[in-house]
Amino acid sequence: MKQLDVCLTPDLLHLHKMDNCIVVVADVFRATSCMVTGLAYGVKSITPVATIEECKFLQDKGFFAAAERDARKVEGFDLDNSPFSFMDEKLIGAEVAMTTTNGTLSIAKAKASAVKVMVGSFLNLGALAQHLRSEPYDVLVLCAGWKGRPNLEDTLYAGALAEALKDQYMLLEDGTLMAQRLYNQSRDNLLGSVSNSSHVRRLQRLGIQKDISYCLQTDLYDVVPVLRGGALVAMN
Amino acid sequence: MKQLDVCLTPDLLHLHKMDNCIVVVADVFRATSCMVTGLAYGVKSITPVATIEECKFLQDKGFFAAAERDARKVEGFDLDNSPFSFMDEKLIGAEVAMTTTNGTLSIAKAKASAVKVMVGSFLNLGALAQHLRSEPYDVLVLCAGWKGRPNLEDTLYAGALAEALKDQYMLLEDGTLMAQRLYNQSRDNLLGSVSNSSHVRRLQRLGIQKDISYCLQTDLYDVVPVLRGGALVAMN
Repeated sequence: MKQLDVCLTPDLLHLHKMDNCIVVVADVFRATSCMVTGLAYGVKSITPVATIEECKFLQDKGFFAAAERDARKVEGFDLDNSPFSFMDEKLIGAEVAMTTTNGTLSIAKAKASAVKVMVGSFLNLGALAQHLRSEPYDVLVLCAGWKGRPNLEDTLYAGALAEALKDQYMLLEDGTLMAQRLYNQSRDNLLGSVSNSSHVRRLQRLGIQKDISYCLQTDLYDVVPVLRGGALVAMN
Repeated sequence: MKQLDVCLTPDLLHLHKMDNCIVVVADVFRATSCMVTGLAYGVKSITPVATIEECKFLQDKGFFAAAERDARKVEGFDLDNSPFSFMDEKLIGAEVAMTTTNGTLSIAKAKASAVKVMVGSFLNLGALAQHLRSEPYDVLVLCAGWKGRPNLEDTLYAGALAEALKDQYMLLEDGTLMAQRLYNQSRDNLLGSVSNSSHVRRLQRLGIQKDISYCLQTDLYDVVPVLRGGALVAMN
């Protein structure tokens, strides 16, 4: 039987074997919710990069570029880290480059050893779960967290994916068990359950309540993003 | 207002500032439950050491020595890592040296920067909480985890301590929030709630069910262990 494991933050990734794994990166507020939204709206590809400089370099080559640090848009870039900026007609068929505080870093770490890197959010929860069931590989859910620390929203997503896959996968580790319990405890009121989390407080100070409600919606899209040759594309 | 934070595993300790903190180390199964039990039964001091060699060295100097690796007693030592071996008349007034897979390592990491290092378990939950309230310092609960990974039982303990102190301390971080929710979800049935955790499965294979039930009892002792000059002693 396949196994599903959860890594609560990229700072614990050294403890996880990835060589038979599909790594599902989750940065629910907001990087991976943006990626899922963009690909669902017709963006051709999203290239996650680790630094502002790489992002600028791709922007100069004609990419639309999205750069966020500490939950704010970096000056000089086209898009910020709100999923609503990815619902733009001009992005249909376009190539996007993206760097964020936590999410793109996690993708960079994962691609070094994983069989495949995919991207998850509540928005594509069911579609991704259905795809994973068809794969022969173990799953590692990598929560992007906040600057190395675990966070509530990504842990809840990991729990949601574990819950969706529990009949097909062995869930062996305590990190997984804790994520699953936290999700089951609050699945009927995700918005209420994250309202006193550190990141929501951070985002609320920036007036991004609309993004938060949006990112907690389940199964809005069928898109399954996979990393191919350094860029995320929608699987057919 | 003082702050209480939770570090879910020593592998994340680099993300936490400890310079105004009392660090409470928790390795509920079983190192810190042994320490609390030993000091409650009259052991004079318990010196936590990181290696088997250091433990042997102190044994040769006349200490009673307890060494555990991978949940098993190491050959040639006096005590194993069961709290019941610390309820021994010959240990009254004695000096004990102790090394374990996770707990003593966490103590070694904490003592580098913390104001004070204390040791917590369900067995002395209320007494430690009461003592902490009288201190001017912030609190960091350091869960020993299992070989770098978070585990359920230490997270539950961190949640229990956070819950006990929530009126006197600010609980700001998601790790704390998650621990607190997990504890509140299962506080009326801790034994049932840990029954499918990885460590309990590991210990059950070793036939240590009695230890597990014992370690989940709340407020059996009033002892408050503090690290002084490299050894844990009971505070008066």
